[in-house]
Order: sequence, then C-alpha cells, then structure tokens
Amino acid sequence: MVILGIDPGYAIIGYGVIDTSKPNMVLDYGAITTPKEDSLPVRLEAIDASLKFLFNKFKPDVVAIEELFYFKNQKTIIQVAQARGVIILACQKYCGNIYEYTPLQIKQALTGQGRAEKAQVQYMVKAILGLNSIPKPDDAADALAVAICHSQTSAVLNPNKV
Amino acid sequence: MVILGIDPGYAIIGYGVIDTSKPNMVLDYGAITTPKEDSLPVRLEAIDASLKFLFNKFKPDVVAIEELFYFKNQKTIIQVAQARGVIILACQKYCGNIYEYTPLQIKQALTGQGRAEKAQVQYMVKAILGLNSIPKPDDAADALAVAICHSQTSAVLNPNKV
Repeated sequence: MVILGIDPGYAIIGYGVIDTSKPNMVLDYGAITTPKEDSLPVRLEAIDASLKFLFNKFKPDVVAIEELFYFKNQKTIIQVAQARGVIILACQKYCGNIYEYTPLQIKQALTGQGRAEKAQVQYMVKAILGLNSIPKPDDAADALAVAICHSQTSAVLNPNKV
Repeated sequence: MVILGIDPGYAIIGYGVIDTSKPNMVLDYGAITTPKEDSLPVRLEAIDASLKFLFNKFKPDVVAIEELFYFKNQKTIIQVAQARGVIILACQKYCGNIYEYTPLQIKQALTGQGRAEKAQVQYMVKAILGLNSIPKPDDAADALAVAICHSQTSAVLNPNKV
C-alpha cells in the first residue's frame, strides 16, 4: 500500500510517501512551498499543481492528512484553512481515499503516548524508516509521521475516513 | 463586462451574474448548496463542479467575491475558509481575474453608507437591477450586491485585485 502523508499549510506543505510493502517503506518526502510575493489565487493554483504532480508520480492508494487544529491567530487559520480546502479537493480528485488524524493520534501511533514531544515523534520517524537523519524540513517529518500513523492504525483500527 | 459575484460559504454559496452592458444588468442568480450528509471532500468537489458550470455558461470577465470576515465560531470559520480556498482556486482556473470586497465596501457602494442594514442593501439590489422582489436566498442577494459593488467601484477606483 502506497500512502501519501500530508502536513497541510499555506506557505509550506509537507509531504511524505511510503510504501508499506517495502522494508524501509520511504519513497520520498519534502515540502511544497508557495512564495509570499505571489497572490492568494496563484499560491492556491501552485499547491494544486504540485499535488497533481505528486499523485501522478507516486499513485498513492490512500492519503493521510493531519487534522487542522485551532490557532490563536485568526488570519493564519483562514489562510491555512483556505489552502487545506484546496489540498482536500486535490486528494479527492486525484485519489479519492482520504483519512484524517489528529496530532494526538499521530503522537500516540508513533511513540505510544499522545503527549510526546515533537523531537520524540521525529526520532521515531527516523528510526521506523531507517533514515540516517531526521527528515527536513519539520513539515516533511510531520507528513511522514501521519503516513506512518495510517500504516499502523489502518491495520488494527477503523480510522477516521474523511 | 460580465461580472460573477460570489458570497462564499460551505453549505450555501450565493452567486449573481450581471452584464454591465445590459439595461437591467442581471443575467442570473441563485445558490450552490452542498448537503451536510456528504463528506467534506465530496462537498468541496461539488462546489468546484458547480462553479465550473457557471463559468462555462456565463464566461464572466471578472469575479467579485466578498472577503471573509471573522467568526466567533472557529469550527465554522475553518469550514467556510476551506470552501473559500476551493472557490478562489476555481475562479483562478476558470477566469483569472478576481476582486475582493469587504462587507463595508459593499454597503458603501450600494447605499452610500458603510453602516447600512442588510435590508437596505437588499432593497438597493432590487432597485438597481429592476427586479420585482428581493432576490432569494439572502446569499444570492449578497452575491449580486458584490457584483454591483464591483461594477460601480471599478469605474472610479482602483479596487483590491486579489
């Protein structure tokens, strides 16, 4: 099973692709970035085009995406939510099989405890995937974490299909 | 000039199409609705498809969209902002010429005062377009209002191109 993990954002969107049939699983990871000089419509179009490229390249069976948690800053939350709408639509158009996980569920799946520090989650991503170093940027590590979370959760539980 | 006005939303998205070269201007208005039984990805896909249909049918030269103002309810704001991201992307893909107006600017353009009541704005929409009654639902009247706002503002000012 090929899983595309996504850490949603506006200026930076992390992605991580794993194949659960391979020993070390990881196929690719990185981040889509949109320059702040560009207008909102141009940035949303760039996010859609970049995701289309990833879906065409890796043909994931399923997408696992981090749930949006609440921000204090309303301007930030509107921007990120607008981008997340575009991301969800792209996942629906190009794959159609989307699962959503809270940060708590992701921490729980990777470290065994929902209150784990970010560094512990990143360490587990590195260890599980047999990488030499923690994936950078953080958004890519977070995206790999949600992909791993789905690979572990879907085997035993009935996760939250969107 | 054909203007598509949009009142963004998630469950209901108002639209209004006017042609400034015609005496009474109005071509069409109504609302796109997405059933709450459907999942988020399906509802976003339906919004995209409905907008694509409107763009193909009316081939607007420009889109005028109401700016998202801040809600008290964070769940609502995330849902509406996610849908608004999809709406902005559709406007970019199918038209590419998008202007944004605040509720204050719209009230100012239609009634001459930024603190006008909703009913005054709706009355002016009816009067300017020579309609027999106030357009329903409210979302359609709001969408016509932002379209009229653009037709008046673009002639004299330099509006806020997105």
